[in-house]
Amino acid sequence: MGDWREITGGVTAARGYRAAGITAGLKPSGLPDLALILSDADAIAAGVFTTSHVKAACVDYCRQRLQAKHSARAILCNAGQANAATGSQGVKDALESADLLAKELGISPEAILLASTGVIGQRIKMDILRGGIPKVVAALSETGSDAAAGAIITTDLVTKSIALETTIGDRPVRIGGIAKGSGMIHPNMATMLAFVTCDAAVAPTLWQQMLTRAADRSFNSITVDGDTSTNDSLIALANGQSRTPAITEMGAEAERLEAMLTAVCQHLAKAIARDGEGATCLVEVQVTGAQDETAARQIAKTIAGSSLVKSAIFGRDPNWGRIAGAAGRAGVPFEQDNLQIKLGDFLLFENGQPLPFDKAAASAYLKKAASGAYLKEDTVLISVSVGNGHGTGQAWGCDLSYDYVKINAEYTT
Amino acid sequence: MGDWREITGGVTAARGYRAAGITAGLKPSGLPDLALILSDADAIAAGVFTTSHVKAACVDYCRQRLQAKHSARAILCNAGQANAATGSQGVKDALESADLLAKELGISPEAILLASTGVIGQRIKMDILRGGIPKVVAALSETGSDAAAGAIITTDLVTKSIALETTIGDRPVRIGGIAKGSGMIHPNMATMLAFVTCDAAVAPTLWQQMLTRAADRSFNSITVDGDTSTNDSLIALANGQSRTPAITEMGAEAERLEAMLTAVCQHLAKAIARDGEGATCLVEVQVTGAQDETAARQIAKTIAGSSLVKSAIFGRDPNWGRIAGAAGRAGVPFEQDNLQIKLGDFLLFENGQPLPFDKAAASAYLKKAASGAYLKEDTVLISVSVGNGHGTGQAWGCDLSYDYVKINAEYTT
Repeated sequence: MGDWREITGGVTAARGYRAAGITAGLKPSGLPDLALILSDADAIAAGVFTTSHVKAACVDYCRQRLQAKHSARAILCNAGQANAATGSQGVKDALESADLLAKELGISPEAILLASTGVIGQRIKMDILRGGIPKVVAALSETGSDAAAGAIITTDLVTKSIALETTIGDRPVRIGGIAKGSGMIHPNMATMLAFVTCDAAVAPTLWQQMLTRAADRSFNSITVDGDTSTNDSLIALANGQSRTPAITEMGAEAERLEAMLTAVCQHLAKAIARDGEGATCLVEVQVTGAQDETAARQIAKTIAGSSLVKSAIFGRDPNWGRIAGAAGRAGVPFEQDNLQIKLGDFLLFENGQPLPFDKAAASAYLKKAASGAYLKEDTVLISVSVGNGHGTGQAWGCDLSYDYVKINAEYTT
Repeated sequence: MGDWREITGGVTAARGYRAAGITAGLKPSGLPDLALILSDADAIAAGVFTTSHVKAACVDYCRQRLQAKHSARAILCNAGQANAATGSQGVKDALESADLLAKELGISPEAILLASTGVIGQRIKMDILRGGIPKVVAALSETGSDAAAGAIITTDLVTKSIALETTIGDRPVRIGGIAKGSGMIHPNMATMLAFVTCDAAVAPTLWQQMLTRAADRSFNSITVDGDTSTNDSLIALANGQSRTPAITEMGAEAERLEAMLTAVCQHLAKAIARDGEGATCLVEVQVTGAQDETAARQIAKTIAGSSLVKSAIFGRDPNWGRIAGAAGRAGVPFEQDNLQIKLGDFLLFENGQPLPFDKAAASAYLKKAASGAYLKEDTVLISVSVGNGHGTGQAWGCDLSYDYVKINAEYTT
């Protein structure tokens, strides 16, 4: 689709990055739980963080770091304890983590960004982290992306990773990313995390603008259960090691880079939705004909997030009424008589009225897209047109199954 | 609590009202499906309707009627077909229904308000309705409230009804109400409906203002699944048959009337939440310390509507992290360090940090409030303080159970 090709290597596909993931012992399960991404040179750094007013120490830490300085060398991520709602001790723990890693790497603590995922209200097990930091540094490798991707997940069923390559000024430029997330899981296992590396040279403000827009078109357009985590973080580094000309303003090359950045983010975002708690299928909602992109995306997100639409998809029910209902309550005015709804290739609703359609075939379409969504590429596509405007927008979600309730209602004293 | 007492009689408790509910044959189930409420004299009429941009013909009809004229004599409600997304034919059907009833009652069609609930996209079965109208008029009675309450429900497990009485100017004044709703149910059985009757004499604009505020503090503060119906309607009549002095401006008597109106609406709203699809308990969220009532209610609604909080309650898990998370993402700024969370009498979180508490006892508290919520008065109470402001607000919801998914995922071709 875009002017790029998929390559291997995740966050280490871009030039000048190493990564590692180890089992430090932070997770009770004994699974990998400490990840590190290192840029060999100073990288321009941009971030998008949770909008929640209850947030983790690492989120405040990163926001402050990036406000003071638009560059970074390393991202350290622990899984197991979210270090959210942990008060002033949580802040101290975050600062100590950065100091320890800086010392081990021989760089300034200001060049370090932090992320945590795990149980809200639990501090990072600092004794274990102190022992883990030298080990994760020792494990750094140019092929370490998969290990890092495996060490940031919590109850995810699969790791999420992608890398793309394009050409700028006759030289290859690469963007890679890893992510985690499948809802907020008991007991408070939270968080959407995504780390993106790029070897282009980009001006800091431009890079942040690109990332903000890419986040709106990807991570901010997915919904598993409508709950925003205390720890959500998207961090993107651009270290200039591709030796391509610096991109300092919007133009053809900046657009190409942003399109590839958006594609990386969308791939990771869709992988999160596909791995949604209890999900049996990925649901993509495309809205056209709205006044602008924001309005279209708002309608798409409301449909993708509707419990009733999600339940209907789980029940393989081509229920256009719920789709119309969700579109109508999205807070975006439109003429009901202009509403058109398609499910896959089935036209269900047009000019404000339902159409006759083959219900059994439409149900079979939903059934086909189900079963083991996180392993497959199958997608339930809902297309909605609300008028003649030029605004288009997308959102991604998953169905609502018994297993979502089961996963989130499990409780053991 | 308030300056009133509970009486029997529902919408016929207030003086000068009759009601009826019959089986016209609109519902395939053969259960009652046509209700009528009649005021013997012209009544001041106010209404609050769905904010959805996809809405039923009866909603547009009532909005237009009430805009042109602030009074009415009758409310006709059919259950079975929602007459939403039915295009211009749906509008014609609504107008014909009003004309037929007006003829039968010997009054102007402009004095008639309409409501529908049932399957979206289905027209009212007009042949059946034409036969039903004379029957429902013949069935009108001063003790007909229960019959009317039974004829407006769809998949509700119980009918919802209340009547309160107070004194204004040494004479009794009564407000009664009936309601239906338990989510939007397959196949698109939708709608929250509430009809309120009052025998006080109130100025039209004042009555509408009172109803709008009461709706914000009741029906607009409940959430079962976050989905707004195409047909949601709250209609309140005030016919002056109590022969009490006319209330034309705010003051002590207006405040007492509004408080009682709010109490009626809250009773019905809580009854709807308690009867939420698959619910095992009613959840009440009280927020204090916010900047204003709107901010407090926004936080309360976000907590009550969180799938994760709802799942945790179903799992009897005293999960303060999810409550904190939902409070944080409500879009209302507050200082995390001021956050306090209580579950029943258990203080779980204070000064931005979790407290030690008896988890087994807190879980037992949740367990006690469960099991057959719609039959009981038990409530799970979540109290949240976010600061030192004077804003307080409430919201009501229910837990998220396997049965919610089951009810909404059922699909038969």
